[in-house]
Amino acid sequence: MAVGAANPVAYHPVPGFQLGTASAGIKTAGRKDLVIMQAQAGSTMAGVFTANAFCAAPVHVCRQHLATDEPLVLVVNTGNANAGTGEQGMLDAKTTCAAVADLAGVPTTQVLPFSTGVIGETLPIERLLDALPQAYGNLSACGWQNAAEGILTTDTRTKGASVKVKLSSEEITISGIAKGSGMIRPNMATMLAYVATDIRLSPVLTQQLVSETSELSFNRITVDGDMSTNDSCILVATGASGVDLVAGSHDYALFRDALIALMQQLAQAIVRDGEGATKFISVAVTGGANRQECLDVAYAIAHSPLVKTAIFASDPNWGRILAAVGYAGVPDLDVDTLTIHLGNVLLVANGGRAPCYEEEAGQSVMDEKEIGINVDLKRGTCSETIWTTDLSYDYVRINADYRS
Amino acid sequence: MAVGAANPVAYHPVPGFQLGTASAGIKTAGRKDLVIMQAQAGSTMAGVFTANAFCAAPVHVCRQHLATDEPLVLVVNTGNANAGTGEQGMLDAKTTCAAVADLAGVPTTQVLPFSTGVIGETLPIERLLDALPQAYGNLSACGWQNAAEGILTTDTRTKGASVKVKLSSEEITISGIAKGSGMIRPNMATMLAYVATDIRLSPVLTQQLVSETSELSFNRITVDGDMSTNDSCILVATGASGVDLVAGSHDYALFRDALIALMQQLAQAIVRDGEGATKFISVAVTGGANRQECLDVAYAIAHSPLVKTAIFASDPNWGRILAAVGYAGVPDLDVDTLTIHLGNVLLVANGGRAPCYEEEAGQSVMDEKEIGINVDLKRGTCSETIWTTDLSYDYVRINADYRS
Repeated sequence: MAVGAANPVAYHPVPGFQLGTASAGIKTAGRKDLVIMQAQAGSTMAGVFTANAFCAAPVHVCRQHLATDEPLVLVVNTGNANAGTGEQGMLDAKTTCAAVADLAGVPTTQVLPFSTGVIGETLPIERLLDALPQAYGNLSACGWQNAAEGILTTDTRTKGASVKVKLSSEEITISGIAKGSGMIRPNMATMLAYVATDIRLSPVLTQQLVSETSELSFNRITVDGDMSTNDSCILVATGASGVDLVAGSHDYALFRDALIALMQQLAQAIVRDGEGATKFISVAVTGGANRQECLDVAYAIAHSPLVKTAIFASDPNWGRILAAVGYAGVPDLDVDTLTIHLGNVLLVANGGRAPCYEEEAGQSVMDEKEIGINVDLKRGTCSETIWTTDLSYDYVRINADYRS
Repeated sequence: MAVGAANPVAYHPVPGFQLGTASAGIKTAGRKDLVIMQAQAGSTMAGVFTANAFCAAPVHVCRQHLATDEPLVLVVNTGNANAGTGEQGMLDAKTTCAAVADLAGVPTTQVLPFSTGVIGETLPIERLLDALPQAYGNLSACGWQNAAEGILTTDTRTKGASVKVKLSSEEITISGIAKGSGMIRPNMATMLAYVATDIRLSPVLTQQLVSETSELSFNRITVDGDMSTNDSCILVATGASGVDLVAGSHDYALFRDALIALMQQLAQAIVRDGEGATKFISVAVTGGANRQECLDVAYAIAHSPLVKTAIFASDPNWGRILAAVGYAGVPDLDVDTLTIHLGNVLLVANGGRAPCYEEEAGQSVMDEKEIGINVDLKRGTCSETIWTTDLSYDYVRINADYRS
């Protein structure tokens, strides 16, 4: 089950960027589970990776290759995360890169490897290597939909976004795909995202943009607070449009806004696609003295199992939201001035239930599939928004039954 | 459902301390829901209270009275938390104190009020006031069991502990009761604990001991990470034994250890008593550079819904534990040296699945009702242990259905 309808994406090809997909039979025979993406020479690439200390072998290799070379080729396998696999895992990731490098005619250090799937089992490296030529042979600028399918694991649907952006002189393209099951699954090392554009960016600016925009998108979603060992987000700028982007320019602002919007679309698609998810929840905290306290309050609400089960039950249980705000750890929080809205309905004011609040009004908001919770701390001008889901029977079922 | 058998407690009376219980019909007619406890003149009392910024009216009044006087009488009602009730809530808490003060012949500021139950509804103050004389009339040194029943809300059983401690010359007594449903329920403002001893303590030492020992007991349990608006723990020292306790003495160490053990017994009883709980989990983190990082790792594991659902399913899913350790935020964590044990079975070593680990061994630990997870960070000498439960279908059912 996923929240909201699946929107088929009409992917715009990104000049200078091709994608090829194959079935390697890594976990399930016949399933698309291997994707190669290649950017033209001169492209820039940068990424952000999981902060989990137990990061997977391919994440280590990505960091090494990005630090020492200018990678142009990406290779992704599903069905196996190559995480918790020690020395053998590092060897397998490097062997994969070397094989792809041979096909592409680039140094091994210009290939970035990604794996997603079960943790703690070694890669079936032979099957993977055997299927690489097929994936490479399928490279096409129109390969986005196949690649979107090829990176999925337990996702119930593909996640993509594509947009053309009119800058002051030229129109450029941004397209992206992501995977992530919404329920940040157990051994399913979880989130991957690949975004490409035909704008030209310096390596420094590529890194800055992917860091800033993933912070405002993939780092603003949470389902259960767990963080996977393989999470990665890559931005590729091919430069094929001939448009140079200079930090601080008007075009830069236009591009950055479009990139944030596209990344948020991908991130929200991950949240919506949980088998356990029945509601899509936006938690907005405004009036904070700084951004961190806004995030602290937002995550206290979004991680509260009590709030999440209440929303699953469509229960406008304002006491649970109030309690979560109260324990978020904001210093000197004045509970008598802050307000809490559910949708447009004022729930909490003057330190307790708002005088005019009526249960029916709260109920009508809770009956929706898309729920907004808004906290105004009334002590500053900072704000933050994050997205999450409810906590349902299915969440427990999926995560309790996963390996059986 | 609760984990493990209920152990009937043989309460030792604490000289100088009496308890009386009545049925006020605050929420349910005929149910014991009102308790008065009175300590003899000269007793010392101190407490620790919820850190939730939205704390309940009685918590505010407790803090005021403890700051300005030396309270001797406690009054507890269940069925209504008097939280989120604004001005009226403060008035009701003070009215309750005044009525008890009249009965006891003490100033109002020598009475501490406590409420637990539904948030956001005003106290039915008349019913409460009407029943106070009955509760006061029942005061008895043997009133522990009735009081243990009288402070319950959704708990499935009473929680108590009682011990006699042989000091260098004399034997002294510590008895205590607690309530808390394990599943830190929604609007059920949740944990209360009252511990009395006949030792003599200075007010400063009473405060120090209740702070230290509740930190190592009630602050080491977690079910879902939510924190209630009414949590309170009170220590009463009547001095009736005539034994003075001086900080730093051998007797002090003996007493403190016994108090910690008793408080941990009460705290663990709260964890065991969740309708949703099917397992009792101890998470021990050793080898930390400091206590905080031990706690960070322990809570990352104990709060991970993925770990908790795996344990519900009796699934030795070591990848989830490894991932939680990895994202606990310990700086410069060396994942290649740390070890993770499930019971006595080594799960993780050298950055991944331990070479000799066999699933059957992990399974046999997981099949038990009481599960130990042990992480050795191998970077220092600090350690911490916390206690928690699994996450089951019933957790969602209870918390989703609670208000319906």
